[in-house]
Amino acid sequence: MNQILDFYGKIISLYDIKIFKVCFDILKVIIIAFISKKIGYFLIDRFYIMQERSKIQFPEKKMKTLSSLTKNVLRYVIYFIAGATILKIFGTDMSSIIAVAGIGSLAIGFGAQSLVRDILTGFFIIFEDQFSVGDYITINNFSGTVEEIGLRITKTRDFSGELHIIPNGEIKIVTNHTRGGMRALVNIGISYEADVDSVIKILNEICDDVKKSRDDILEGPTVLGITDFKDSSIGVTIVANTKPMQQWAVERELRYRIKQVFDEKNVEFPYPHLDVTIKDGIK
Amino acid sequence: MNQILDFYGKIISLYDIKIFKVCFDILKVIIIAFISKKIGYFLIDRFYIMQERSKIQFPEKKMKTLSSLTKNVLRYVIYFIAGATILKIFGTDMSSIIAVAGIGSLAIGFGAQSLVRDILTGFFIIFEDQFSVGDYITINNFSGTVEEIGLRITKTRDFSGELHIIPNGEIKIVTNHTRGGMRALVNIGISYEADVDSVIKILNEICDDVKKSRDDILEGPTVLGITDFKDSSIGVTIVANTKPMQQWAVERELRYRIKQVFDEKNVEFPYPHLDVTIKDGIK
Amino acid sequence: MNQILDFYGKIISLYDIKIFKVCFDILKVIIIAFISKKIGYFLIDRFYIMQERSKIQFPEKKMKTLSSLTKNVLRYVIYFIAGATILKIFGTDMSSIIAVAGIGSLAIGFGAQSLVRDILTGFFIIFEDQFSVGDYITINNFSGTVEEIGLRITKTRDFSGELHIIPNGEIKIVTNHTRGGMRALVNIGISYEADVDSVIKILNEICDDVKKSRDDILEGPTVLGITDFKDSSIGVTIVANTKPMQQWAVERELRYRIKQVFDEKNVEFPYPHLDVTIKDGIK
Amino acid sequence: MNQILDFYGKIISLYDIKIFKVCFDILKVIIIAFISKKIGYFLIDRFYIMQERSKIQFPEKKMKTLSSLTKNVLRYVIYFIAGATILKIFGTDMSSIIAVAGIGSLAIGFGAQSLVRDILTGFFIIFEDQFSVGDYITINNFSGTVEEIGLRITKTRDFSGELHIIPNGEIKIVTNHTRGGMRALVNIGISYEADVDSVIKILNEICDDVKKSRDDILEGPTVLGITDFKDSSIGVTIVANTKPMQQWAVERELRYRIKQVFDEKNVEFPYPHLDVTIKDGIK
Amino acid sequence: MNQILDFYGKIISLYDIKIFKVCFDILKVIIIAFISKKIGYFLIDRFYIMQERSKIQFPEKKMKTLSSLTKNVLRYVIYFIAGATILKIFGTDMSSIIAVAGIGSLAIGFGAQSLVRDILTGFFIIFEDQFSVGDYITINNFSGTVEEIGLRITKTRDFSGELHIIPNGEIKIVTNHTRGGMRALVNIGISYEADVDSVIKILNEICDDVKKSRDDILEGPTVLGITDFKDSSIGVTIVANTKPMQQWAVERELRYRIKQVFDEKNVEFPYPHLDVTIKDGIK
Amino acid sequence: MNQILDFYGKIISLYDIKIFKVCFDILKVIIIAFISKKIGYFLIDRFYIMQERSKIQFPEKKMKTLSSLTKNVLRYVIYFIAGATILKIFGTDMSSIIAVAGIGSLAIGFGAQSLVRDILTGFFIIFEDQFSVGDYITINNFSGTVEEIGLRITKTRDFSGELHIIPNGEIKIVTNHTRGGMRALVNIGISYEADVDSVIKILNEICDDVKKSRDDILEGPTVLGITDFKDSSIGVTIVANTKPMQQWAVERELRYRIKQVFDEKNVEFPYPHLDVTIKDGIK
Amino acid sequence: MNQILDFYGKIISLYDIKIFKVCFDILKVIIIAFISKKIGYFLIDRFYIMQERSKIQFPEKKMKTLSSLTKNVLRYVIYFIAGATILKIFGTDMSSIIAVAGIGSLAIGFGAQSLVRDILTGFFIIFEDQFSVGDYITINNFSGTVEEIGLRITKTRDFSGELHIIPNGEIKIVTNHTRGGMRALVNIGISYEADVDSVIKILNEICDDVKKSRDDILEGPTVLGITDFKDSSIGVTIVANTKPMQQWAVERELRYRIKQVFDEKNVEFPYPHLDVTIKDGIK
Repeated sequence: MNQILDFYGKIISLYDIKIFKVCFDILKVIIIAFISKKIGYFLIDRFYIMQERSKIQFPEKKMKTLSSLTKNVLRYVIYFIAGATILKIFGTDMSSIIAVAGIGSLAIGFGAQSLVRDILTGFFIIFEDQFSVGDYITINNFSGTVEEIGLRITKTRDFSGELHIIPNGEIKIVTNHTRGGMRALVNIGISYEADVDSVIKILNEICDDVKKSRDDILEGPTVLGITDFKDSSIGVTIVANTKPMQQWAVERELRYRIKQVFDEKNVEFPYPHLDVTIKDGIK
Repeated sequence: MNQILDFYGKIISLYDIKIFKVCFDILKVIIIAFISKKIGYFLIDRFYIMQERSKIQFPEKKMKTLSSLTKNVLRYVIYFIAGATILKIFGTDMSSIIAVAGIGSLAIGFGAQSLVRDILTGFFIIFEDQFSVGDYITINNFSGTVEEIGLRITKTRDFSGELHIIPNGEIKIVTNHTRGGMRALVNIGISYEADVDSVIKILNEICDDVKKSRDDILEGPTVLGITDFKDSSIGVTIVANTKPMQQWAVERELRYRIKQVFDEKNVEFPYPHLDVTIKDGIK
Repeated sequence: MNQILDFYGKIISLYDIKIFKVCFDILKVIIIAFISKKIGYFLIDRFYIMQERSKIQFPEKKMKTLSSLTKNVLRYVIYFIAGATILKIFGTDMSSIIAVAGIGSLAIGFGAQSLVRDILTGFFIIFEDQFSVGDYITINNFSGTVEEIGLRITKTRDFSGELHIIPNGEIKIVTNHTRGGMRALVNIGISYEADVDSVIKILNEICDDVKKSRDDILEGPTVLGITDFKDSSIGVTIVANTKPMQQWAVERELRYRIKQVFDEKNVEFPYPHLDVTIKDGIK
Repeated sequence: MNQILDFYGKIISLYDIKIFKVCFDILKVIIIAFISKKIGYFLIDRFYIMQERSKIQFPEKKMKTLSSLTKNVLRYVIYFIAGATILKIFGTDMSSIIAVAGIGSLAIGFGAQSLVRDILTGFFIIFEDQFSVGDYITINNFSGTVEEIGLRITKTRDFSGELHIIPNGEIKIVTNHTRGGMRALVNIGISYEADVDSVIKILNEICDDVKKSRDDILEGPTVLGITDFKDSSIGVTIVANTKPMQQWAVERELRYRIKQVFDEKNVEFPYPHLDVTIKDGIK
Repeated sequence: MNQILDFYGKIISLYDIKIFKVCFDILKVIIIAFISKKIGYFLIDRFYIMQERSKIQFPEKKMKTLSSLTKNVLRYVIYFIAGATILKIFGTDMSSIIAVAGIGSLAIGFGAQSLVRDILTGFFIIFEDQFSVGDYITINNFSGTVEEIGLRITKTRDFSGELHIIPNGEIKIVTNHTRGGMRALVNIGISYEADVDSVIKILNEICDDVKKSRDDILEGPTVLGITDFKDSSIGVTIVANTKPMQQWAVERELRYRIKQVFDEKNVEFPYPHLDVTIKDGIK
Repeated sequence: MNQILDFYGKIISLYDIKIFKVCFDILKVIIIAFISKKIGYFLIDRFYIMQERSKIQFPEKKMKTLSSLTKNVLRYVIYFIAGATILKIFGTDMSSIIAVAGIGSLAIGFGAQSLVRDILTGFFIIFEDQFSVGDYITINNFSGTVEEIGLRITKTRDFSGELHIIPNGEIKIVTNHTRGGMRALVNIGISYEADVDSVIKILNEICDDVKKSRDDILEGPTVLGITDFKDSSIGVTIVANTKPMQQWAVERELRYRIKQVFDEKNVEFPYPHLDVTIKDGIK
Repeated sequence: MNQILDFYGKIISLYDIKIFKVCFDILKVIIIAFISKKIGYFLIDRFYIMQERSKIQFPEKKMKTLSSLTKNVLRYVIYFIAGATILKIFGTDMSSIIAVAGIGSLAIGFGAQSLVRDILTGFFIIFEDQFSVGDYITINNFSGTVEEIGLRITKTRDFSGELHIIPNGEIKIVTNHTRGGMRALVNIGISYEADVDSVIKILNEICDDVKKSRDDILEGPTVLGITDFKDSSIGVTIVANTKPMQQWAVERELRYRIKQVFDEKNVEFPYPHLDVTIKDGIK
C-alpha cells in the first residue's frame, strides 16, 4: 500500500515537472512562431519592393495581391509547423502526421508542377528574348500577334481577332515570323501546250517591275523555274524576300500583275484537263 | 527458485507502472484528439464565414456541403493519428503501419492531383480574367458561350444548344472570341475570263455601301486583292473588322449584296471548269 | 574456465528474461490485433449502415459485397502489421521488410490510382449534377442516353442500341444535349441562276408554316441568309431552337416542307455543275 | 606495455562474447526464417484451397502454377530479409543496401503496375458484369465476340476470325452490343425528280411487310423522313429495333425488299448527277 | 598545462584503441564482402543450372553472357556496399552518400523499368500462350509470322519479308490470325439495272462449286445478300470460313470463278455511272 | 514548498545554461553560413572564369547574368539551411518543415526537369556534333537552317523566313540534310500509248546532258525505269546524287530540259484520261 | 557568481576539447576525401583501359573525353560528401541539406533517365544484334541504311541522302529489311472486258522469263490471281521473293516486261471508266 502511494507520488511529481516543462515548451514554440512570422512578412515586403526595381514589372495591383497571397501561404505554413511541434511536445506520433500531410503535399506538388513549369518557361522566354510584344508568332498551331508576355501566360491575337491565352508551360517550339525577311511565294500553273521559255521571260519582266514599284522587297522576286509536273499544268514558282508581314501584300501584287500581263499577252491559265475516249456504247 | 520469484515480482512491478503509464498516455491522446477536433471545427467554420465575404462567392447550399465535407475529412484524419499514437504506445511497429498507409496515400495523392489542378487553373482563370460569363470562347475544340465559371468546372453553351462541362484542369489554351473586334472574311471566286479590275471596282462599291448601311463594322470591308489562283477561278478576298459576334451577320450581308450586284451587272460566278479532248475512240 | 561458465550463466539468465519478455510481447501484439479487428469490423458495419441513409444509394447486394471486401482488406492489413511487429520483437531488420513491401505498395498504389480517380470524378459528377439518368450526353465521342450513374462507372445507351460502359475517370469534358433548347439547322443549296430574294421569301413562308404546325419549337425557324458560296450552289441556312431531342424531327419536317413547296413553285435543287470546253482533239 | 596487453585482452574478451552472441543471433534469424517459410506456405495453400470454392474459378493447372509461383516469390523475399538481417548483425550499413535494393524495387514496382492495373480492371469487369462470354463487344476499336474473361486478359473473336487478346488494363470504355435491342438503319437515296410522298408511301408498305415476315424485330421499321439533301439525291432513312446481332440481317432484308419493290413500281435509284455547260471551245 | 597533456594523452589512447578497432572493422567488412561474393556467385551458377532444365530455354551462349552479366552486377553492388560501410566506419555522413546515390538509382530505376516491363509481358505471353512460333499475328499495326518469342523481344516476319523486332513491353493488344477458322470475304458490285434475284442465284451456284472443289473451307461460302446501296452499284457480299491463312486463296478463287461465270452468263460488272444534263451553253 | 522552489531553481539554472548554449550555437550557425557563402561565391566565380576558356563560349553578358543567378540561388539555399538549423536549435520539429519544403521541392523538381533535359540534350548535340550552324535540318517536322546552337535552345530558320526556337529537350530524332550528297528525284508520267523504250532513251540523253553541264552533281542522273503503273500514265523516275542543298536546282534543271526535249521530239505529257460509255439515255 | 564562472570555465574547457576534436575530424575527412579521389581516379583509368579491349570500341578521343568527364563527376561528388560531412561536424542540420539536394537530384534524376534509357536500349540492340551497320531498317517511320550504332545514338542514312540521328531510347519497334528475302510486288489492272485466263497466261510467261534472266530472285515471280475487283479494272497481283534491297529492281523489271509484252500482244491497260447517261436537258 505504502509502495503504491509512494509510486503515485513519484508520478505526480514527475508529471508536475513535465507539465511545467510542457507549458514552457509550448510558450517557446508560440514565441518563435510569432517572431518567424514577423521576419517572414518583413522579408516578403522587402522582396516585393526589390522586385519593383527589376526588369519584369508587374502592375501595382497584381503586386499587392501576390504579396498578400505569399503572406497567407507563409502564415499557414508557420501555423502548421507550430501546431505539429506542439503535438510533438505532447508525444503524438509524428510519422503518422507526416503520412497524412504527405497525401496533401503529393497532390499539391503534382498539381502545382504545371504552375512551376509555366513560370520557368516564362522566365526563359523573357531572358532569351524569344519574342516581343508585336511579333507575329506561331505556338502549337495557334498563330497571332503577341499582345502581352507574362510570367505565367502569353496572349496573342489572331488575324481573325481571336485572343489566344497560352500558359507558358504549353509553349514548346516557338515560330517567330518577324525576325528577319520573310518569303513571298507564288505558284503559277502553265499549260503543257505553252512555250515555257517565253512564259518565264514574261514572268521575269513582271518580277523586275514589281521589284521597282515596291520598297518592302528585300530580295527581288525571282522565277525559280519548273518546280512541278502537275496533272494538267506545269508548276512554276516565284519567290521573293520581303520585310516581315509584307509577304502577303507582295504575293497579292505579284498575282495581280501576272493576271494583267497574261491577259495582255494572251497567256492562258490552264483549266483542269481530261482526255476522253468514247467507247462503243449503245449509241 | 527464489531468484525466479524475485524476477517475476520485478516484472509485475515493472508492468504495473507501465500499465499505469499506458492508461495515462492513452487518456492524454484522447483528450488532445478531442481538443484538436474542436479547434479544427472552429477554424473551418471561421474559414467558411471569411470566405463568404470574398470575391468568389458560392451558393450557401454548396458552402454547407463543403464545410461538412472538410469536417468529415478532419475527423477521420484525427481518428487516424490518435489511433496510430495509441498503437505506438502499445509498442506496435509504426513503419509497417506507415507502409500500409503509404499505399492508400499514394493512390489518393495521385488520384486527387487532377482535382488540385482543376482548382489551381480555375483560380488563375478568375484571377487573370481569361474569360467572363457571356464571352464566346474555344477550349480544346469545344466552342461556346460561357455560362458559368467555377473553381473546378467551366460551363459553355454551344450554338447548337449543347452544354459543355469542362473541368478547369483540361483548359490549356483558351481562345476568346469576344475581346476586341472580329474579322469578317468573304472569299469570292472570279472567272479567269473576267476583267479583274472592273470586278474589284464593283466589289469596292459594295464594300462602301455595306460600310454605310451597318453600324457594327469597326473597320470598313476592304478588298484585299487576288489571294489565290484556283483551279477554275481567281480567289478574291474581302475582310472587315466588326464588333464581336457580328462577324457572321456582316459576312452574310456582304455575300447577299455581292450576289445582288453581280446579277445586276452580269458578273458570273464561275462553275468548276474542265478542258476535254476527245481522243480517237472506236467512234 | 570459471569465467566462461559465469559468462554462460549470465547469457542464460539474460535470455531467460528476454524469452519471457518476448512471449509476453507477442501475446500483447496478438491481443491488440484481435481487438483492433473487432473495432475495425464494428466501424465498417456502422459506416455501411450510415451509408444506407445517404443520398447515393447502393443496391443491398452490392453493399454486402463491398462490406465483406473492406473487412477482408482490413484483416490482411492487421495480419501484416501484427506479423511485422512480431518479427521486430525477434529483432528482424525492419527496413528490408519495408523495402520489400515497398515494391508491392508502389505497384498497388500506381495501379489503384485509376480506381481513386474513377470514384473522385464520379463523386463530382453526382455532386455537381453534370448529367442525370435520361439525359443525352457525349463523352469522348461516345454519345448516348444515360442509363446509370455509379461511383465508378457510367452507362449510356447509343441510338444504335449499343451500351457504352464508361469508367468515370475517363470522363473529362461532358457535353449534355438535354440542358435547354437545341438548334435545328437545315442547309439548302440554291442555284446561282435562281433569284435569291424570291427563294428566301418562299423559305420564310415555309418557316412560318412549320412554326405554326409544331409546338416543340421554342424559337421560330429563321432564314439566316447566304452562308456560303459553294462550287455549284449558294448555301442558305435555316435555324430553329427546339425542345431537346426534337431538333432532328424539326429538321426532317423542314426538309419535307421545302421539298414540297419547291416542287410546287418550280424552284430547282441544283445538281453539281461543270463547265466543259471541248479542246481540239483528233476529232 | 602492460596497458596494451590489458587492452588487447579486453578486446578479445569483448569479441569472444560478441562472436558468441553473433552466432546465436544468426541461428535465431535462420530459425525464424524457416518457420516463416513454413507458415507462409501453409497460408498460400489454404488461400488457394479457399479460392477454389469462390466464384472466379481457375483451371486446376493454372492454380498449381500460380501457387508455386507465389511460393517462389515468398521464398526469395524471406531469403532476402534473412540475408539482410544477418548482414546487419555483422554491422553492415543497411541504408546502402536499401539504396541498392531501391533501384530494383523502383524498376519492378513501375514495371509491375500494369499487371496490378490488369487484375484490378479484370476484377471490376467481372464484379460489375460489364460483359459475359458470348457478348459482342467493342474495346479500343477491336470488336469481337467474347471468348474468355480472365483476371488479366480478355479474349474476343472478330467476325473475320481473328482472336484479339486484350490485357484488361487496356480496357477503358467498353461498348456492349448485346445488351438490349439494336438499331437496324437503311439509308436510301431518292431522285430529286421523284415524288417524295409516293416513295415514302411505298417504303412504309415495305416496312409493314418486313415487320410481319420476321419475328426478330422488336420495334417496326419506320420511315423517319427526309434526313439529308445530298448532291444528287434526297436521303431517306428507315430504322428498326431488332434483337441483338439480328440488325444486319434485318438491314439486308429491308434493302432486298426495297430493290424488289422499286423495280416493280419503277422507282429509280438515282445515279450521281452532273449538269454540264459546253463552253465555246475551238469546236 | 598538466591538464592539457593529460587530455592529449586521453585522446591518443582513445584514438589508439579506435584505430585498432577501425582496422579490425575494415578487415571484417572485407572478409564478409569476400564471402558474400563467393556465396552470390555460387547461387547465380546454381540458378542458371536450374534454369537450363526449365521450359523457357536459352541458347547456351546467351546463358553464359547473362550469367557473367549478373555476376558483374553483383560484384559492383558488393563493392559499393563494402565501400559505403568502410566510409561509415570512418564516420562519413551516410545520408549525403545516399542522396548522391539516389540520383543515379532514380535515373537507373526509371530507365530500367521498360526492361522490367518487357520481361514481365514476355513471361505472360509465354505463360498464357498468347501466340506461338509460326502464328500470324498483328501487334500495333505490325503484322507478321512469329519467328522467335523471347523474354525481352518478339520477332515477326512480314509478308513483305521485313523482320519486325518488337520489345515485349510494346505489346498491348495481340491479334492472332491463326487460332481457329478465318473469314474469306468478297464484295461484288451489281448494276442497279440487273436482276438481283438471278445474280444471287448465279452467285449461290458459284459458292457451291467452290465449296466442292476446295478442302480448306470450313463453312461454305454463303451469299449474305444486299449489304450496301452504293453510288453506282448494289453491294453484295459473300463470306466463307476457311482454314487459317487460306482465306486469301479462297477469296481469289471466288473472284476468279465469279469473273468466269459472269462473262459466260453476260452479267456485267457495273462501271461508275454518271447522269449528265447538258445545260444551255453557248453551243 | 521547498522542493518546488528547489525545482524552480534547477530549471532556471538549466535554462540559463541552455540559453547560453543556444546563443553560442546560433552564433556558430551564422558564422558558418557566412563563411560558406564566401567560399561558395569564390567557387562560382572561379567556375565561370574556368568556363570562359572552355569550348562552349557564352557571350559575357549572359555569363554575368548566370553567375549572379547562381549566387542568388546559393544565397537562398544557405539562408534556408541556416534558418532550419537555428529552428532546430530551438527544438522545432524538423520533419514537418521538411514535409512543407517537400511540397515545394517536388513541384520545383518536376518543373525543372524539362530544364535539365534541355541542357543534357544540348550537351549531347554539341558533344556528338549532331549538327552545326549552317546545316539544314529537320526536327519534329520543323525544317530550317541552323542559326544558333545553345545549351538550352536551338534556333533554325525556315526557307519561308520563319525562325523556329526549339528547346533542346524537344529534340528527339534529328534529320540532317547536309551530311553527304542528297538525292534529286524527278517523277515523269508517260502515256500508256507511248513507246517506253524510245522515251527512256530520250531521258537517258537528257541525263547525260545535265550531268555534263553542271558540276554540283555527284552521281549522274539515272533513269531508274518504270516505277509505277498509274491510272492514266506510266511513272518513270530519274534520280541523281547532288551536293547538299543543290538537289532542288538539279531537279528544276532536269524538269526544264525534259519539257524542252519532249516538245522538240513530240513526246506528249499525258493528261488524266477517262473512257466513257454513253448509255441509252433519253437522247 | 562563482557558479557562473565555474560554469563558464566548464564550457570553455568543453569547447577547447571540442574544437580540438573538430579540427581533428575535419582533417580526417579531408584526408579520406583525398584518398578516395586517388582510388576513384585509379579505378576509372583501369576501367577505361579494360574497356579498350572489349567488343564495343570507342574512338580514343571519345574515350579521353568520357574518362575526364567521369573524373569530373567523381570529384564533385566527393567534394559534396566531404563538404556535407564537415558541415555535419559543425552540427548543421543535415535533413534540410538533403531536402535542398533533393530538389536537384529529383530534377537531374528525371532529366537523366532518358540518357539511361538510351544506353540500356543501345546495349540490347548490340547484344541482341537487332541490326548491323549496312542494314536497311525502319524506326518510327524513319527508314535508312545504318551508318553507325552507338551506345546512345544510331545514325541511318535515307535514300534521299538525309542522315537521321536517332537516340536509342526512341527506338521501340525495329523493322529490318535486310534479314532474309524480300517480297517484290506488282499490281496490274486488267480491263473487265479482257479475257482473264489469257492475260494470266501471258503474265505467267513473263514471270518465267524474268525468273530466268535475273539471279537475284529467290522464289520465282508468281501470279497470285485476281486480288481485287476495282472500279474500272480487275486487280491482278504478281509477287516474287528476292535478295534484300533487290526487290525494287525486280519490280521495275517486271513492270517493264509487262508493258513490252502487253504492247506486243495488244493487251490494254484500262483507263478509268465512266458510264454516262445523257438525261433530257434543254438540248
